[in-house]
Amino acid sequence: MEVIPVNLGERSYQVCVGTGLLADLGHLIRRHGLPTRAAVIADETVARLHGPALLAALDRADLAAPLFTVPAGEASKSLACAGDLCDRLIAAGLDRHSLLIAFGGGVIGDLAGFVAAIYYRGIPYLHVPTTVVAQVDSSVGGKTGVNAAGGKNLIGAFHQPRLVIADVATLATLPDREFGEGFGEIIKHAIIRDRALFDDLLQTGRVPPADAPALARLIARNVAIKAAIVAADERETTGLRAVLNFGHTVGHAIENAAGYGRYLHGEAVALGMVAAAHLSVAKAGLPPAERDAIVALLAAYKLPVVLPPDLATDAILEPLLRDKKFADGRVRFVLSPAIGDAFVAATVSLDDIRQAVEVVRG
Amino acid sequence: MEVIPVNLGERSYQVCVGTGLLADLGHLIRRHGLPTRAAVIADETVARLHGPALLAALDRADLAAPLFTVPAGEASKSLACAGDLCDRLIAAGLDRHSLLIAFGGGVIGDLAGFVAAIYYRGIPYLHVPTTVVAQVDSSVGGKTGVNAAGGKNLIGAFHQPRLVIADVATLATLPDREFGEGFGEIIKHAIIRDRALFDDLLQTGRVPPADAPALARLIARNVAIKAAIVAADERETTGLRAVLNFGHTVGHAIENAAGYGRYLHGEAVALGMVAAAHLSVAKAGLPPAERDAIVALLAAYKLPVVLPPDLATDAILEPLLRDKKFADGRVRFVLSPAIGDAFVAATVSLDDIRQAVEVVRG
Repeated sequence: MEVIPVNLGERSYQVCVGTGLLADLGHLIRRHGLPTRAAVIADETVARLHGPALLAALDRADLAAPLFTVPAGEASKSLACAGDLCDRLIAAGLDRHSLLIAFGGGVIGDLAGFVAAIYYRGIPYLHVPTTVVAQVDSSVGGKTGVNAAGGKNLIGAFHQPRLVIADVATLATLPDREFGEGFGEIIKHAIIRDRALFDDLLQTGRVPPADAPALARLIARNVAIKAAIVAADERETTGLRAVLNFGHTVGHAIENAAGYGRYLHGEAVALGMVAAAHLSVAKAGLPPAERDAIVALLAAYKLPVVLPPDLATDAILEPLLRDKKFADGRVRFVLSPAIGDAFVAATVSLDDIRQAVEVVRG
Repeated sequence: MEVIPVNLGERSYQVCVGTGLLADLGHLIRRHGLPTRAAVIADETVARLHGPALLAALDRADLAAPLFTVPAGEASKSLACAGDLCDRLIAAGLDRHSLLIAFGGGVIGDLAGFVAAIYYRGIPYLHVPTTVVAQVDSSVGGKTGVNAAGGKNLIGAFHQPRLVIADVATLATLPDREFGEGFGEIIKHAIIRDRALFDDLLQTGRVPPADAPALARLIARNVAIKAAIVAADERETTGLRAVLNFGHTVGHAIENAAGYGRYLHGEAVALGMVAAAHLSVAKAGLPPAERDAIVALLAAYKLPVVLPPDLATDAILEPLLRDKKFADGRVRFVLSPAIGDAFVAATVSLDDIRQAVEVVRG
């Protein structure tokens, strides 16, 4: 087991990465002195695949916790669903000294973390991420929330977990495409912060889900990158944490224009990173050879790097046009001057973005 | 204008109490360096009575802000209403650098403060309380939230305002009963923390709404009591802040049993304080003469001190019976050993509470 600290003063916590940790969950809760009165929130898929193992692990440490499920998918990330979960927690008698266990991928982490943030004005929670994206990215940093009709993640709270338990064994049940999309965020980490990781990713190729030790090392390395950035800028006030959005401005726009479901998050971010790499050449002096290396690495990981013809540039840019920040010319866009480095630039216009999206058509 | 600081480190802010402050609101926002892109949330009654004055005041400082209203009353304190307000803020283009202005009584402060807590993971807000209860109590301390089906205030967040502007002139439009209920919380402050205030309240009688200078002094004095308690225990972790719940365990239960609307909050708390005073004699050594003085002061302020025959003790105690904390015998109940002092006791049983409620029947 590798343990990565997230240093946030009194809100510090540990991320434990390893194989088979799920079986030890109850004991880990006791060892960390967390509340023993708990409830688990999971989606129906994760509950079916791993719920019995989790509940058995709690039982072995003499912990009993009700398991509440929501339908799998982005639609559960709503204020209505959060309110419904609060009602179920109240009915089960959980109070402000109870523990919430978020068991699943990004949707469940965001949703259950948000419920923990608002239930009794905030209760402790533990995150057990079960996807690559959640293990390397969304489970670390305390961003929680739900979607509003007017946009993703517009309702939420910063609420750090007390502990994160990433069991790479749970990744073995992911469909190949969902396993693969996680490498979009891993490649992002390499581009913005770790040249050596970039080279290693190029050399090793995609770690297979069955190679648990290699997977655990890779995930721990990525958690350390994310944790260092979050520790330096917890609430995204200095701009440092914003570098994690590399590829996300265009990526989110593509995700939105294509309709949620056509591209997985990591896939849309891969396309966004191709656009960001092109802009980085034009605006930040990224050597063209490094841009080509970024595109080649994404392609080698079977992530999309070319936009399909039916996705019109105008449709992709439409949400940016509606966004007052962009309309006012106050565009903040993450660029990379060299693989392993990134910064938030104020020099990118909507027209620049439009040209970069066109280039992604190949 | 009296200025009371609420000392909470980086979350510190000022409460300004005075007459006619509303007219100066725009300039106060600028002087305190708050965001100038703003939106106002008010209930329909306050919007009708004071909305034009507030918007004119903003306009005089070259600030323009949309005013969003919700129906007056406790029913607006819901997650659905909070979500609806978020949608309206998104449509109006407010982002995470915008300011929310909570303009109204306790319901609006709790609701708009909660919206500010969850909108874009938290934006700054300014509170302009327009009732006695809100000015002396709920606007100070950062407790925000909405009601769940299973109980009041079970969903929420600690989110401190950036500034509180209490204009006592707005109290002149309160119906007499709503003006009067505010003295329930004022008398509570005197009982738990300020013997001299108790004596002064006895001597002066109820300050009329028209005597603005006396009202401003009284409110500022109460804000200082609340601010000192909040500064010492912001998140109610040490138990100190819990003394503010004096009279509230039974008060909430009565409010609930009677049906919201029959008793105003301050009135129900008055009845709860009578019960708490009786328990304080039995369990904390409060001299019976002081208990009698408490009941007499409440009665002198035209607050209820006798339970009506149709409100059965069982109906009042029913929610406490359902509460697992009480069922497990872990009852925390605020007692006063002497006027001017209070503490959280662990020695009060449900049976003790039952007897005290019976005594309130007179």
